[in-house]
Amino acid sequence: MATANILVNGSWVPSKSEERFQAVNPATGEAIGMEYPVSQWEDLDAVLNAAQAADEIVRDWPGSRFAQFLEAYADEIEVNADELAEVAHQETALPHLPRLRNGEIPRTTGQLRQAADAARSGDWASPVIDEENNLRSMLRSIGPVIVFGPNNFPFAFNGISGGDFAAAVAAGNPVIAKGHPSHPETTRLLAEAALKAAQATDFPPGFVQLVYRMPADLGIRLIKDPRLAAVGYTGGLNAGLKIKAAADEVGKPAYLELSSINPVFVLPSYLSEKADDLVDEFTGSCLMGSGQFCTNPGLVILPPGEETATWIGKLQQKFSESNCAPLLSGSGQKSFLENVKYLTENGAQLLTGGEAADGPGFAVQSTLLQVSAEQFLNSPETFQREVFGNGSLLVTTSNLDQMIEIARTLEGQLTGTVYLSQCDEEDAFYSKLEPVLRRKVGRLLNNKMPTGVAVSPAMNHGGPFPATGHPGFTAVGIPASVRRFAMLQSYDNIPTSRLPEALKS
Amino acid sequence: MATANILVNGSWVPSKSEERFQAVNPATGEAIGMEYPVSQWEDLDAVLNAAQAADEIVRDWPGSRFAQFLEAYADEIEVNADELAEVAHQETALPHLPRLRNGEIPRTTGQLRQAADAARSGDWASPVIDEENNLRSMLRSIGPVIVFGPNNFPFAFNGISGGDFAAAVAAGNPVIAKGHPSHPETTRLLAEAALKAAQATDFPPGFVQLVYRMPADLGIRLIKDPRLAAVGYTGGLNAGLKIKAAADEVGKPAYLELSSINPVFVLPSYLSEKADDLVDEFTGSCLMGSGQFCTNPGLVILPPGEETATWIGKLQQKFSESNCAPLLSGSGQKSFLENVKYLTENGAQLLTGGEAADGPGFAVQSTLLQVSAEQFLNSPETFQREVFGNGSLLVTTSNLDQMIEIARTLEGQLTGTVYLSQCDEEDAFYSKLEPVLRRKVGRLLNNKMPTGVAVSPAMNHGGPFPATGHPGFTAVGIPASVRRFAMLQSYDNIPTSRLPEALKS
Repeated sequence: MATANILVNGSWVPSKSEERFQAVNPATGEAIGMEYPVSQWEDLDAVLNAAQAADEIVRDWPGSRFAQFLEAYADEIEVNADELAEVAHQETALPHLPRLRNGEIPRTTGQLRQAADAARSGDWASPVIDEENNLRSMLRSIGPVIVFGPNNFPFAFNGISGGDFAAAVAAGNPVIAKGHPSHPETTRLLAEAALKAAQATDFPPGFVQLVYRMPADLGIRLIKDPRLAAVGYTGGLNAGLKIKAAADEVGKPAYLELSSINPVFVLPSYLSEKADDLVDEFTGSCLMGSGQFCTNPGLVILPPGEETATWIGKLQQKFSESNCAPLLSGSGQKSFLENVKYLTENGAQLLTGGEAADGPGFAVQSTLLQVSAEQFLNSPETFQREVFGNGSLLVTTSNLDQMIEIARTLEGQLTGTVYLSQCDEEDAFYSKLEPVLRRKVGRLLNNKMPTGVAVSPAMNHGGPFPATGHPGFTAVGIPASVRRFAMLQSYDNIPTSRLPEALKS
Repeated sequence: MATANILVNGSWVPSKSEERFQAVNPATGEAIGMEYPVSQWEDLDAVLNAAQAADEIVRDWPGSRFAQFLEAYADEIEVNADELAEVAHQETALPHLPRLRNGEIPRTTGQLRQAADAARSGDWASPVIDEENNLRSMLRSIGPVIVFGPNNFPFAFNGISGGDFAAAVAAGNPVIAKGHPSHPETTRLLAEAALKAAQATDFPPGFVQLVYRMPADLGIRLIKDPRLAAVGYTGGLNAGLKIKAAADEVGKPAYLELSSINPVFVLPSYLSEKADDLVDEFTGSCLMGSGQFCTNPGLVILPPGEETATWIGKLQQKFSESNCAPLLSGSGQKSFLENVKYLTENGAQLLTGGEAADGPGFAVQSTLLQVSAEQFLNSPETFQREVFGNGSLLVTTSNLDQMIEIARTLEGQLTGTVYLSQCDEEDAFYSKLEPVLRRKVGRLLNNKMPTGVAVSPAMNHGGPFPATGHPGFTAVGIPASVRRFAMLQSYDNIPTSRLPEALKS
């Protein structure tokens, strides 16, 4: 069987390693396509050298050069969009239409172009000129960045095309992409487009590179290597914590999006007034993409009162009738079912679902679990277990103050949502709940599900640990996301001829 | 003997601990003043509770409230400036005049007032309003911050009055100050002024608090405590790395200024043309404050050529005639002498100094050491040992390319300096040296010693690890330093009445 090459220093070359893996079609559970290499150190050493060499060439280039590459790359992706969407569909079972072709690909090219605009304007770098002290500062590129892409967005978060990639390039850094092994062919095709764009815009060969996979210990070694400057990672908590520890040990910036269950609090009047709408809205948000969104609402805190039971009944009905696409991988299906089991063994009531779906592939039944506020508060860590996929845990309260207690126990989250009606009573309660919830979440929402993550300068796709590694940064939203892959550089008493353009008076 | 109280929740109260320490006058080596407590967990638990309670009250206050406190506090410090300078002089042996009274105190009140301006304007928070998506974001306060002050600036970096304190308060956070045990009475007097200002401006009692010292393991426990949101630290590398590890483990922002030897590269024409000026300039910078500056030039890389030996001779003469004030502490003197011994045992030649100075107190002889570039490059880690105090290591090169090799081996630094003359040849060499040095240092200088750290928005008092914990942040320079003690908060679909003022359209 053919084995894919890796992209090293501008060429597609065979990996020096013998170990291989294949992608699996989540709809059938069957292996598809070529074999892809699991890189050993020789491969990684070569990409590090090439990235460093590229960095020495591009580090003083103006932002407009990086903009040209990003725009050329967006164009290339658009030319191949149909094929890319089809391949990604086979590797992820996410719908070709509208999701991949008309949703995620345009989002991805839009991000690349927004990053290009940021690179060209240079405002992201916050240049400051203090003529009195003859002192100037700005953010500037930091050096080679590795980007680890997750499995759930084969384009918009891909290591070679997603938000971290676009941000790292806009800041002027070479990128080593670590593709996600669940969609290697999608990633390979993207890398072909990236290489074409890099060549067309005269970038040095090591500016964009791709490896598919590596043993965990070599990933750690790569992160600690002095040739690497920074890390972008979106993925599971366990692997992410190992990457964080390695980067922390050597004092290297690592921007990590790790986990979130995105609590949704529903106040009583809202539930009375909008019960049916809320069933629809919640179902849509929770089951979209089979629930495999970082901002999927995985915890719903419901108000006391008889109407809650009725509402849960309706939701249960809707979930049991739903038919979700498969999860992204066999390991995803396995951990979904294990996490459901973990919650039920700890006392959560299974309302619907909880099993693998009939037929081939990695689908699971849409799943609802329920605990009381007392149960939750008795063991908040247990019931914050993330069930990644089309499932959610409902918490029923017997008084509203329990909502505040629950908010107090929450770990850091990407988002937190409150549904409330326009009445003085719920406003008054909100003013007690909000201060507690606000500090726990990166993005606070009212009367809106958290799944949509607009690529806006006002977005925060970030939040306190363990949602991410640092509460001051966002992975989505330009220019803020660009500022991550940079270092602050001050110039003291430096003659004009030796200053970066942006710092000349 | 009287024992000082700690400042907990708005009151001066006795520590619950029995352990005590005293300050020592570095000029005499004798204990002075009261006894001060070494706090145990009961003290720390109380300050954490009070800080959390204060945080719940102030977290929605407008920036102008924090500005009022900062300004009132600056006024209080000025009222007591003479006494403060005198006490600090006794505890640190730093000169009362001009350094403490007319240099560091005005710098400190200036920083507090600049922080007040930042708090009032709110620009530091970078509010962004996206009306189309009904999405808004800004940086907002993060919660209680502990600030560990160093020994070398009893005012400008003090945990209760320095740059980190001012920044944390300007961002809206309560501060727990950990005074440095080498100047506890200075810190206590500052805390009295801070308390007076906090009361005059109606702050809750736990907003500013003070403990003097704690066992290392309890410091770690405090850092990991969920009631604490962030850490500011300026001090030695070893303690700093332990604090960093603890904060990293729980994903808590910690801003750490750890170490730097501030390399200075001197190109040949400059040395020929300005030999005497450079002797004077270097001596002034290296011996100022007995060399106890974070930006003290501890490594000088000299050009090949006969003039270098002559220059070294003049410098040696000047150093041997100098008479420095004592170091800040007995342990500082001990590690200075140990580090000199470490360098000579590893092959460095002692040109002058290297011993404790005659007489009582903690003074050391101004010290110069020398190695060849070959020696340095053979073991760059060895010769980057920081000798904190009035000493420096000279490196002689036999060709200019060795300067670039040396720059490549450098660890992250706060500053890096190049002295060069205005000629094509040195400009050409600079263009090869600069890209290597630039990425290693937070602030790059030409023809100027690094010791002056202007409080300017264009300052970067930061740099790559191990100079600090993150190369994107500065400890000096407002508003950038304020942005550290904050979290990014996005508001999605939130009605105007529930938005912070700065995010209302």
